[in-house]
Amino acid sequence: MTTTPRRMRELAAHQSLRLLGSVSLGRIAFTEHAMPGIRPVNHILDEGDIIIRSHVGAAILATHGQIVCYEADALDPDTHLGWSVIVLGRAQVVQDPAEVERYSRIVRPWVDRQMDYVIRIHSETITGYEIVGSDPA
Amino acid sequence: MTTTPRRMRELAAHQSLRLLGSVSLGRIAFTEHAMPGIRPVNHILDEGDIIIRSHVGAAILATHGQIVCYEADALDPDTHLGWSVIVLGRAQVVQDPAEVERYSRIVRPWVDRQMDYVIRIHSETITGYEIVGSDPA
Repeated sequence: MTTTPRRMRELAAHQSLRLLGSVSLGRIAFTEHAMPGIRPVNHILDEGDIIIRSHVGAAILATHGQIVCYEADALDPDTHLGWSVIVLGRAQVVQDPAEVERYSRIVRPWVDRQMDYVIRIHSETITGYEIVGSDPA
Repeated sequence: MTTTPRRMRELAAHQSLRLLGSVSLGRIAFTEHAMPGIRPVNHILDEGDIIIRSHVGAAILATHGQIVCYEADALDPDTHLGWSVIVLGRAQVVQDPAEVERYSRIVRPWVDRQMDYVIRIHSETITGYEIVGSDPA
């Protein structure tokens, strides 16, 4: 499908976070042994922080205390319209048992796998843009 | 929507690459000043390598000569079925003018922006999985 060229329009941080919270899937990008890594995960947004779950042995568990990137988008491959949001922030494995318990109830893993850990990404830098038509109304 | 738990099933490298080539959108994850970065981009697959375009000043242009991660997926947020493919490989800014010319014709940027550079990611490590129902037929 051919489309007319699209324009990128920057979004404010609060708009970006709202969009990220409106979807359940994103990708966490991290550095492991000085090499880039990326994993698709499902998330919820809690008071502006990104909450994901992890299993023992997962590469993302090693992100504890480190800066990670989290990206979510809804970009249509046909119309080339949509948005993308990127959050940079420090990842922390949630330690408080009551918090782990609470998040374990509301962040349901998609796959049938023991997910013992909860990771919180504290949103520090939030950037987002939408792709709009060349001649918006 | 509630679904029964899903299982992850590993894909062979050739299946993974075929799936990656069947979609036009992915995300490149890279390390920049020891910090993780991620950008959604559109791609084509050419002889097993991932080809993307970039503009001057883009963070991904600095990946020249570095190992990057490229991820594409088709994961359904309702059914929790789909696949994800992750490729690790070295990124190179394509230098040959004839190659740049050829790729510029077949990799069309989604946004109305001058995209002077073509980046090739040489697929070195390819991992992929699909998420299937608990009781596949």
